[in-house]
Amino acid sequence: MEHTNMTQHISRRYNQELEDIRNRVLAMGGLVEQQLLDAMTALEKLDGSLAEKVVERDHEVNAMEVAIDEECNLVLARRQPAASDLRLVVAVIKTITDLERIGDEAERIARMVGSMAEADGANRLFTQIHSLGQHVRRMLRGALDAFAHLDTEKAVDVWSEDRAVDREYESLMRELMTYMMEDPRSIPSIFKAIFAARAIERIGDRSSNICEYVLYLVHGKDVRHTRLDQQKIEDQD
Amino acid sequence: MEHTNMTQHISRRYNQELEDIRNRVLAMGGLVEQQLLDAMTALEKLDGSLAEKVVERDHEVNAMEVAIDEECNLVLARRQPAASDLRLVVAVIKTITDLERIGDEAERIARMVGSMAEADGANRLFTQIHSLGQHVRRMLRGALDAFAHLDTEKAVDVWSEDRAVDREYESLMRELMTYMMEDPRSIPSIFKAIFAARAIERIGDRSSNICEYVLYLVHGKDVRHTRLDQQKIEDQD
Repeated sequence: MEHTNMTQHISRRYNQELEDIRNRVLAMGGLVEQQLLDAMTALEKLDGSLAEKVVERDHEVNAMEVAIDEECNLVLARRQPAASDLRLVVAVIKTITDLERIGDEAERIARMVGSMAEADGANRLFTQIHSLGQHVRRMLRGALDAFAHLDTEKAVDVWSEDRAVDREYESLMRELMTYMMEDPRSIPSIFKAIFAARAIERIGDRSSNICEYVLYLVHGKDVRHTRLDQQKIEDQD
Repeated sequence: MEHTNMTQHISRRYNQELEDIRNRVLAMGGLVEQQLLDAMTALEKLDGSLAEKVVERDHEVNAMEVAIDEECNLVLARRQPAASDLRLVVAVIKTITDLERIGDEAERIARMVGSMAEADGANRLFTQIHSLGQHVRRMLRGALDAFAHLDTEKAVDVWSEDRAVDREYESLMRELMTYMMEDPRSIPSIFKAIFAARAIERIGDRSSNICEYVLYLVHGKDVRHTRLDQQKIEDQD
């Protein structure tokens, strides 16, 4: 009887640790979402001080990644998780890498603001980028929701959305190219817009990665590099 | 006595499994190096059939990632590795993700070849990109060497090299921007060159990630987001 109690006690503590890791990933996701929102707002309003805030807060994202990574390693070493618990820990280790890099992309977007503030026609460029940014923000939110509720249907939806983002990005690039040809003096500021758009598109890729980890976590097998994935690559051409 | 033999036997098998994983990562690294070399060669020689070969072989890289990932998960579940063995498995899981994505970038470079082949002045653009490509290929080789010999000195060297690649990339971008302004008709082909250069620069980032995992593996703590890393980001501005 005492043994059973002890086992239950340990198993409760262990479940709490896993729950704690999940919650910390969601908190990290929340901060990264805020960083992306702030970076996009700073870009649209040419708000230099908001952009600076994004740059300064990036180290908080990094610190969260390191802390969660360490906790995962402790759990792997101490608890020797198996089956779905093991997949959770592995999925978390991968997810936080992508979240941290999404934070880096948000920082990159914010760093464009200062140098664009004075550029000619910057407003016109930002309107184009705005819709891509909204789209990608919805993807990130969806990926975090899918992770929070282990919702595979949502994960597949968000994952498929990446193709639409890629198409939107390609069409934006063609538009920027046309602007350049029409008015070569605008080339330097359009270059900045290209890099901001590229950073946003990467965030779509990484949100889609997180959805892959959710599918791996729930189904227990690797769904990457499947026929669907192949199709995605072909569609991009 | 019999028990000791059994333990030694199990431990020998376990060591063999870890060694096998390491070797498979190096084999995957070799294939990814070849893909990058072929993609660069196809780009420089505008060799469409070599480019096609790169695109076709990408699924081999993907299959290797999935297989190694599965083996890592099996070892985690069955052997419950601790300390440096655990760090090896975690470092491998992260390393193969970056190797797979380097493979994707090589595929992206190869896919540029077809559409660039007819572009005006394509040769001039490729000469510029060639040197960046050589630099990044040396980084990837160095990262794989550092992983193979757990050589932390080499890992730090390659990791620092990423700053030089970033500077070379920025200067290439400025040059491409000047070409565009001089001859707006060249804008469409220069756009392709920009994306190829971007893919190459990303391979530098990912090689540098692999070096971080080697440092984590050897030193047992996270060296990312350190003061040095912060300095790197500031230098990029």
